[in-house]
Amino acid sequence: MHPRAEEVLGKPGFASVMDIPGPVDHVISSVPAAAVLELVDHCARKGVRGVTVYTARFGETGHADLADLEQRLLRRAREGNVRLLGPNCMGIYCPSTGLSFKHWPHESGPVGLYSQSGGITMEAVYAASLRGVRFSKVVSYGNSLDINEADLMEYFSEDPETEVIGVYVEGAREGERFFRAIRRAVARKPVVLWKGGASQAGGRAAASHTASLTGSREVWHALARQTGAVVVESVEELADMLVAFRFCGRATGYRVGVAGGGGGRAVLAADACERAGLVLEPIPPAMAKVLEQRYPTFWDWIGNPADGSILGASDLNDKDILELMAKAPEYDLLIGNLSEPWSMDRPEEIDRWSEAADRAIDVARSTHKPVAFVMDDTLPEAAWERQAVGESRRKLAEAGLAVFPTVTRAARALQKLATYYRERGS
Amino acid sequence: MHPRAEEVLGKPGFASVMDIPGPVDHVISSVPAAAVLELVDHCARKGVRGVTVYTARFGETGHADLADLEQRLLRRAREGNVRLLGPNCMGIYCPSTGLSFKHWPHESGPVGLYSQSGGITMEAVYAASLRGVRFSKVVSYGNSLDINEADLMEYFSEDPETEVIGVYVEGAREGERFFRAIRRAVARKPVVLWKGGASQAGGRAAASHTASLTGSREVWHALARQTGAVVVESVEELADMLVAFRFCGRATGYRVGVAGGGGGRAVLAADACERAGLVLEPIPPAMAKVLEQRYPTFWDWIGNPADGSILGASDLNDKDILELMAKAPEYDLLIGNLSEPWSMDRPEEIDRWSEAADRAIDVARSTHKPVAFVMDDTLPEAAWERQAVGESRRKLAEAGLAVFPTVTRAARALQKLATYYRERGS
Repeated sequence: MHPRAEEVLGKPGFASVMDIPGPVDHVISSVPAAAVLELVDHCARKGVRGVTVYTARFGETGHADLADLEQRLLRRAREGNVRLLGPNCMGIYCPSTGLSFKHWPHESGPVGLYSQSGGITMEAVYAASLRGVRFSKVVSYGNSLDINEADLMEYFSEDPETEVIGVYVEGAREGERFFRAIRRAVARKPVVLWKGGASQAGGRAAASHTASLTGSREVWHALARQTGAVVVESVEELADMLVAFRFCGRATGYRVGVAGGGGGRAVLAADACERAGLVLEPIPPAMAKVLEQRYPTFWDWIGNPADGSILGASDLNDKDILELMAKAPEYDLLIGNLSEPWSMDRPEEIDRWSEAADRAIDVARSTHKPVAFVMDDTLPEAAWERQAVGESRRKLAEAGLAVFPTVTRAARALQKLATYYRERGS
Repeated sequence: MHPRAEEVLGKPGFASVMDIPGPVDHVISSVPAAAVLELVDHCARKGVRGVTVYTARFGETGHADLADLEQRLLRRAREGNVRLLGPNCMGIYCPSTGLSFKHWPHESGPVGLYSQSGGITMEAVYAASLRGVRFSKVVSYGNSLDINEADLMEYFSEDPETEVIGVYVEGAREGERFFRAIRRAVARKPVVLWKGGASQAGGRAAASHTASLTGSREVWHALARQTGAVVVESVEELADMLVAFRFCGRATGYRVGVAGGGGGRAVLAADACERAGLVLEPIPPAMAKVLEQRYPTFWDWIGNPADGSILGASDLNDKDILELMAKAPEYDLLIGNLSEPWSMDRPEEIDRWSEAADRAIDVARSTHKPVAFVMDDTLPEAAWERQAVGESRRKLAEAGLAVFPTVTRAARALQKLATYYRERGS
């Protein structure tokens, strides 16, 4: 649709929705704010059921006349029986129907996401999709003038294509209904909830971003805890929990076994796990017996975390240790430290990366316990390193492994995963 | 030196240190543990003053005979007037003298680092050097049998080539002397201290890594606070603080101004800053007056953080806002959100990255206030994106800007920077 052009990017242009031949399911509007009212009228007459109002500069500006225009828009849509998404939103990404953005993955997956912010939507989809997460539907809903956080929670809760729900909200239009909807959703699938604008300054920013009335961090966290939602506070944590719920499976407790990497990494992994609330169970007797057989000289030196650099003179490697931990009933969770870019000093060693990825895949396939792998995927300087890191990441993602950039983030994600399943009594 | 070979990698091989013609300053040993004693004897006779004992498998194994061997090694070295670094260490990286590792930067810089763990040393040098940090000397000192944490703190404190000191310790051989040395160092230059193995499980891991007796997290933190050292708890945070002290300059307080990025990023930046203990001062009247002149329709919509997406219809951009904040006495610190990989949907937009980097460099040059920039440098999927991110990162690093991968980490680093300068009364 275009006021004048007869063709736009190779598609026919129409001056009005009403000129389009045949029925129209959905309209995406990016006309200026002042023209949206007429557009919605035309949509009502044409029988269009839904309009995504990409157009911004309504109530979020803080100007009374524009807030008033927004209210008139809502009344007009209700009179015409048209549902609105937005205004001030990026709309819908639904790869299975081809409603997508150019460089976003074209395949679907079981993760549903909705967000009041278009920018946060993009950041979250980008971060999670690099790590193998694919989406059923992603909805950016902006000022939530009509379709709001409660409608969307009810939708995703019922949606058979969605197994995990991620949410970024700045405010709640219907707080009570929203929290009831979360509670019902949590009974069926994990809900990861990020409340933006929970600080005082954040609340001011949210008002000027999506005209949201926020609430204090404490109130939101208390409410969220009552619903069983998993609360996060950054894009990184949101992506981590989508990865964890998508790829880790059910957790039965907090006892973690850790292997891979050298001695310093073992120490920092232990610190990170304990800080996150996980329990580093020492090597159990039955497992120690196996280690003794395979490493008679230094078996008693191996602990949890298992320092990979002390396995040198044995026929054991990190994979063996993780597989033994996977079989031991003393461990609920596993963390595997993969090689890091800094550990490679020669391009010829590129195969070591690939082999580490293969071992990780074997470990993950050998158990139903949640396994988090740690791999730093900061952009390296050298082209050959970029390629090695990129290929390993893709391989791990395609095999459905949960990979985290730091051991601190892996430990926190596993702790939240374990808490979710403990509270669900499973 | 080699028991049999007459040539190793093109260099002459000798069966003993004593066969080498001319004086020898320093010896790096990677002979097996059982052979180190004789090596040290030979070094003593040759007049070698220092030996780096790369060799491991001493006290850290937990085996009494090997702990005993380690003690005999120490006695032998003392008798022969030879100083030992290690055992179980990676040794020294000193680019100005050519003592380096193949893929590490060959240029020097004013950051000194020492670490009980070789792996942590590699991780920290890798992470910090990608962000432009260069080192005076880096020392990995392992089991600290002879040269210990206190010796090294005294050395770096006096070293005129070192302006910032980073430390990773697992235990203290001479706790009191170490803390006295930190206090003296802090009077001259910032000290960033990371104590590994501060948790119970971490303490066990540290014992088997470097035979260290650790201590509780609380005791260490209390002691460190008394010295004025900046305490960190991960490789990421260590790198962040080296970047902050190297590139940010002195901070005069906690009041932060934030600009760049869209509305969601403004909300999350506000939350992250407030959580970190920074104060988001609203736009002051004098600055608001300038905004009104340049953006008559929506000047009152601009807040702190300044949402970049609302500047569209004005002649203002993120650089203008940051420069106004830099001039306003109401702000002590600045954060600039740079474009993110996800914000680019077309290779043709590669120039937008480069322009954002140029604007950031202009901002940093226009002020003495600490400015932290936020740029996600996760490895992108597409080759053109990898190149764009890599080039921007290099450009910013070469210009001496402080860049952080997330706004949460930028805010925490600025808070610690401000606290350091407040406690130093400057």
